Amino acid sequence: MQQAIAVLDSGVGGLTVVKEVMRQLPHEKVIYFGDTARSPYGPRAASEVRHFTRQIVDYLLQFNPKMIVIACNTATAVAIEDIRARVSIPVVGVISPGARAAIKSTRSGMIGVIGTDGTIRSQAYETALKMISPDIRVYSEACPLLAPFVERGLFSSESAYDVVEQSLSPLRGKPIDCLILGCTHYPFLTESISQVMGPEVALISSAEETARDISTILQQRGLLSNSSEMPVHQFFCSGEPVVFKQIALSWLKDQIALKPVVWQIPSII
Amino acid sequence: MQQAIAVLDSGVGGLTVVKEVMRQLPHEKVIYFGDTARSPYGPRAASEVRHFTRQIVDYLLQFNPKMIVIACNTATAVAIEDIRARVSIPVVGVISPGARAAIKSTRSGMIGVIGTDGTIRSQAYETALKMISPDIRVYSEACPLLAPFVERGLFSSESAYDVVEQSLSPLRGKPIDCLILGCTHYPFLTESISQVMGPEVALISSAEETARDISTILQQRGLLSNSSEMPVHQFFCSGEPVVFKQIALSWLKDQIALKPVVWQIPSII
Repeated sequence: MQQAIAVLDSGVGGLTVVKEVMRQLPHEKVIYFGDTARSPYGPRAASEVRHFTRQIVDYLLQFNPKMIVIACNTATAVAIEDIRARVSIPVVGVISPGARAAIKSTRSGMIGVIGTDGTIRSQAYETALKMISPDIRVYSEACPLLAPFVERGLFSSESAYDVVEQSLSPLRGKPIDCLILGCTHYPFLTESISQVMGPEVALISSAEETARDISTILQQRGLLSNSSEMPVHQFFCSGEPVVFKQIALSWLKDQIALKPVVWQIPSII
Repeated sequence: MQQAIAVLDSGVGGLTVVKEVMRQLPHEKVIYFGDTARSPYGPRAASEVRHFTRQIVDYLLQFNPKMIVIACNTATAVAIEDIRARVSIPVVGVISPGARAAIKSTRSGMIGVIGTDGTIRSQAYETALKMISPDIRVYSEACPLLAPFVERGLFSSESAYDVVEQSLSPLRGKPIDCLILGCTHYPFLTESISQVMGPEVALISSAEETARDISTILQQRGLLSNSSEMPVHQFFCSGEPVVFKQIALSWLKDQIALKPVVWQIPSII
């Protein structure tokens, strides 16, 4: 029985990480949990997010995964150390990979970060960036409207550009040469974000970078799948499944089209 | 006493990895060994390269490093498993990071690889790429002239473009969308390679990507330096030091200018 990579998020945002995991590691099985019933996590107290994260990890452990991926920046910021202390398998968050990629990308040493209220308030990116490279200058901006917007499936709508433009306006004119999309929901809005920030600002997707780190860590630990069978992925969401499934199918269409996939709504909350 | 990252190469090529380590991880101390007396490794038998690599690692272990980086594709291809079996600290090569980055970068699934005779003959990139993503199509080309050219310090000369153009001509017209610079000497020639391949082909530097992986692995293992003092790097070369030092100083000028650096020629061979 192939051991899976277990991925969790407050809702659909972690699907951006899943898409990259499926693309970069096509033989790995993924079990996904989107806590759509309690999304968004951004405005919640840290203690509450920690409690939710712990609850979902406990649920996912029944499947005997080989790795836990906290594919939510808010949960990574406040809960990753707690989860690392509770489980014996590798736990990967989405903050360090994005920080590392931004440091690799920047030439000016000035980096922008956007995220939810919870993520920006925690200063988790500043901490991660300065731990690696103390002289980096960081410009942060909370964008509380963006994740809920994506969660409703509105990321391709005409109003997407307006909401993005308004949310990013404090960062325009700042001397940054790269911008960390510090919320896994934001890659859904890449096109608008890129238009607003212009071609001089490289966008760092914590989703792509986290998948890259997952690959590094699995390989270093000898945990890469050597199964030649195509994996059957499993998706769980805690809330109303119609919109969740619709977003997942449209976002992951190249990865899961025509493949067997299991959808479930567990009652853990 | 701060534990160093020990980096070895057949000559000056590994300095491209060192530059990126110093840029991406400015607080880490580096000890470098360039085996300039026996460079190039590319045309040598695998058993000989394994013997040289083992000899250098034994020499570097006296400094009690926290990690060994085999910053030479030829040596990684034939000796990394041997070294992993001999030491208890993490050993990082330059092939998997480049393979991972190419998989992240490609959209077409068709990847080019250039390297020394030894690296291309070993099929190490094919193996690494297909282990992660079995459907990737790989176009490989040995470029035996390039590393010796760099080793002589001629990478900025006018003839650089001609040698690069001639070496890469079998790959032009191939349907690749990214090209792995599968020899740590090649980033010295990035400009010419990029001109020859054109803007549609993304160049993957195993140097940048290896530094990124070093950061991931040090952090996962809790080995990142927390020293606030600037490290004093050490450079060793086995052969004539004048050209080596000249290339190192010019390549690393932004990283080591005005900083104390130790240069030594040990007699291990």
